[in-house]
Amino acid sequence: MATAEVKLSQDELKKQAAWKAVEYVTSGMKLGLGTGSTAAFAVDKIGQLLKDGTLKDIVAVPTSIRTYEQALSLGIPLATLDEVSELDLAIDGADEVDPNLHVVKGRGGALLREKMVELASKKFVCIVDESKLVEGLGGSKDAMPVEIVQFCWKYNLNRLQNLPELTGNVAKLRMDGDKPYVTDNSNYIVDLYFEDPIKDPHAAAEAISKLTGVVDHGLFLDMVDVCIVARSNGIEVMEK
Amino acid sequence: MATAEVKLSQDELKKQAAWKAVEYVTSGMKLGLGTGSTAAFAVDKIGQLLKDGTLKDIVAVPTSIRTYEQALSLGIPLATLDEVSELDLAIDGADEVDPNLHVVKGRGGALLREKMVELASKKFVCIVDESKLVEGLGGSKDAMPVEIVQFCWKYNLNRLQNLPELTGNVAKLRMDGDKPYVTDNSNYIVDLYFEDPIKDPHAAAEAISKLTGVVDHGLFLDMVDVCIVARSNGIEVMEK
Repeated sequence: MATAEVKLSQDELKKQAAWKAVEYVTSGMKLGLGTGSTAAFAVDKIGQLLKDGTLKDIVAVPTSIRTYEQALSLGIPLATLDEVSELDLAIDGADEVDPNLHVVKGRGGALLREKMVELASKKFVCIVDESKLVEGLGGSKDAMPVEIVQFCWKYNLNRLQNLPELTGNVAKLRMDGDKPYVTDNSNYIVDLYFEDPIKDPHAAAEAISKLTGVVDHGLFLDMVDVCIVARSNGIEVMEK
Repeated sequence: MATAEVKLSQDELKKQAAWKAVEYVTSGMKLGLGTGSTAAFAVDKIGQLLKDGTLKDIVAVPTSIRTYEQALSLGIPLATLDEVSELDLAIDGADEVDPNLHVVKGRGGALLREKMVELASKKFVCIVDESKLVEGLGGSKDAMPVEIVQFCWKYNLNRLQNLPELTGNVAKLRMDGDKPYVTDNSNYIVDLYFEDPIKDPHAAAEAISKLTGVVDHGLFLDMVDVCIVARSNGIEVMEK
């Protein structure tokens, strides 16, 4: 019974991590707002702090339609990178985090929009629960997404599967029912599944990017400055 | 009158260059077929040589719908990179050729498809008339195209215009009437116009490719093996 009292729910943990991330926000900042269940708690908190006057003069660039709608409903002033090209801080979740704070993102399919916004931010605070921590990227056995043009997708899927920098991966076209999943940019996604973690993420990222027809990939390297991890026994802050 | 008799028409010159390129084709080859008025003469000639039995067992991958239709009408067996991933020879035109046989392509908008096919070819024979020769890429003052995703295109247009590796360029969104031109891959094209030729094409290509949201660009570097130039006084063959 004592255990039951101490143990926080998964949602409570995510909320604590998100609120911790919002401590990095100060008035006047231009923000990048991430997508997903953990990021949503951060967006809620920012809306609340704007409403009660604790925060002022915030402009935010959302990374998805969903976040756009959430922020809009909370009265957070919004912009796009076309209007605000330099951001002070981005807050977003991740699918995997390694000990160097390199992350995998984009299982939700919005990797390109997320990468553009987070690369435009001076500081990127990543919020995850401890299930996302891996020894090496690809280590969760779940998908590492690559966005490719539709033209000759099989050719590019095979090339991805055969890249020496990605040894032992199985590449699968992401489906949406019985049709290929199509991104906001009208592209397909090839999901890579790894037997063992990627040995050299930088070499892998470079090899993937070099393939003509690849639009973007889910390896976000050297981008995260602070990672806030919600653990069952509390919040841990990992800094670069 | 003597001059008039000797001087060949522009079309006659293009035809001679195209026919010269077709001399590189042998039976059993897998070919990449380019797009444009000069490449069209090569496709015609290949069709003719197949019909009269001089060439046999050719399979060709076209770089555009137009070339696909031309080759189909000539009875040339066709495939895509999904089926045939390694080609023996590609024949295509170019918009600019520099003394190192680096070229600019894609003013027609099909740069990505052309680059994928030509990178898949062991040998790339480029056919141009002499008006396409430049001292340095960008030197024609005409467009060097960059294909970008539609999302935040202004942001990427500004980033392209401000790249130090592309000093002095003016970037313009390509239009189709009063709407942005849309590629076969549902992307936009930003055309870069240079005051002076690009100093370091490799550095430029790398800087452009690194921008998240860029899908492809018109710099085709270290790809052309042979360039056949139709000059008013005859055909010149430039080899790497």
